[in-house]
Amino acid sequence: MASPSSPPDPVELWPQVQPEAARRLMRAGLESFARRGYHATTTRHIATGAGMSPAALYVHFSSKAALLTEISRSGHEWTLSLVRQAVARGTDPVERMRALVEEFVAWHAEQHVVARVAQYELAALPEEAHRVVKGLRRETEQVVRSTIRDGVEAGVFDVPDVRVAARAVLSLGIDVARWYSERGPRTPADLGQEYADLVLRMLGVRPAR
Amino acid sequence: MASPSSPPDPVELWPQVQPEAARRLMRAGLESFARRGYHATTTRHIATGAGMSPAALYVHFSSKAALLTEISRSGHEWTLSLVRQAVARGTDPVERMRALVEEFVAWHAEQHVVARVAQYELAALPEEAHRVVKGLRRETEQVVRSTIRDGVEAGVFDVPDVRVAARAVLSLGIDVARWYSERGPRTPADLGQEYADLVLRMLGVRPAR
Repeated sequence: MASPSSPPDPVELWPQVQPEAARRLMRAGLESFARRGYHATTTRHIATGAGMSPAALYVHFSSKAALLTEISRSGHEWTLSLVRQAVARGTDPVERMRALVEEFVAWHAEQHVVARVAQYELAALPEEAHRVVKGLRRETEQVVRSTIRDGVEAGVFDVPDVRVAARAVLSLGIDVARWYSERGPRTPADLGQEYADLVLRMLGVRPAR
Repeated sequence: MASPSSPPDPVELWPQVQPEAARRLMRAGLESFARRGYHATTTRHIATGAGMSPAALYVHFSSKAALLTEISRSGHEWTLSLVRQAVARGTDPVERMRALVEEFVAWHAEQHVVARVAQYELAALPEEAHRVVKGLRRETEQVVRSTIRDGVEAGVFDVPDVRVAARAVLSLGIDVARWYSERGPRTPADLGQEYADLVLRMLGVRPAR
């Protein structure tokens, strides 16, 4: 876990990427995509950021697009697995939804750079990667919807439209990546708890006090 | 008002920009910033998009940054004036907040291209423009906070933290610009109403039924 004053090393997100040089390239790509945007980033920017030659980049990634694909796909897989694990921990719909929002929001604060690139550069993904990422997003949305639906069926949630509510829950979490800063007063975990309270109210749960 | 199948012409947002050639350049800049990102857009892209020569661009804007500044500043001024007008229409905090969310969300859906560029290219603004835009954002946030505070004082809202709640309200609206598409089933006004219902619940108002 990173300290609140420095952004966490995204490399922890990519343990499966080997060798270490490939992870270094992903981190340099991530930084440049976040700062300049995907289209303004060249493979030279990425290689230089990783302290390597442009030719060395191609040993690990066939293109800039392949590197974006790996960042985006792994970020989306991570969040899907995060929400799946959160809702699998209990049976009470209120507690499952609380865990889901806490984890989803905290991740988007902690990994705001990864999340911004994954969210804002969707249109830059090659067609096949776009299809895969869209599938992961659909699955994540299904987890949220079915958790809301369980709560509605149990009589603890009350929403006019499950799809709109699910979209709003995800939207609140994703938008954290746009504005979150380590220099602000809130830790990712604080924010997750505050947002979980707000979401539960939005879903019609009265705060117990 | 644009039809749901085609994005509205952002030129309606810029009636004050004269002559028409300057508005055409702003529209071409907006399209390229939204598609390629600010840093990958050249003044040649913008001029070509507007059907003009690169030299003709400099008659109207001193730089690409001046053009982004005008798009961002006017978008932020528009939303500030929108929320101010929405809350000025009534005295009941619930109705004022409903109007605020309806207008703010509908605008971010209808003008999602303008909103995306205004939100995601903040870091690309020159220093002075950044200061001005930050001020407009702070004023918009103040309108939301004071409307929530009025409701808390009147005993109709109940939130753990006014600042966090205000941030969440704005976040829900702004994130609409990221995912909204004219090809979806909902009009901007539909979405505004649905989100207003969700926000009022989030602020502790029980739906009347």
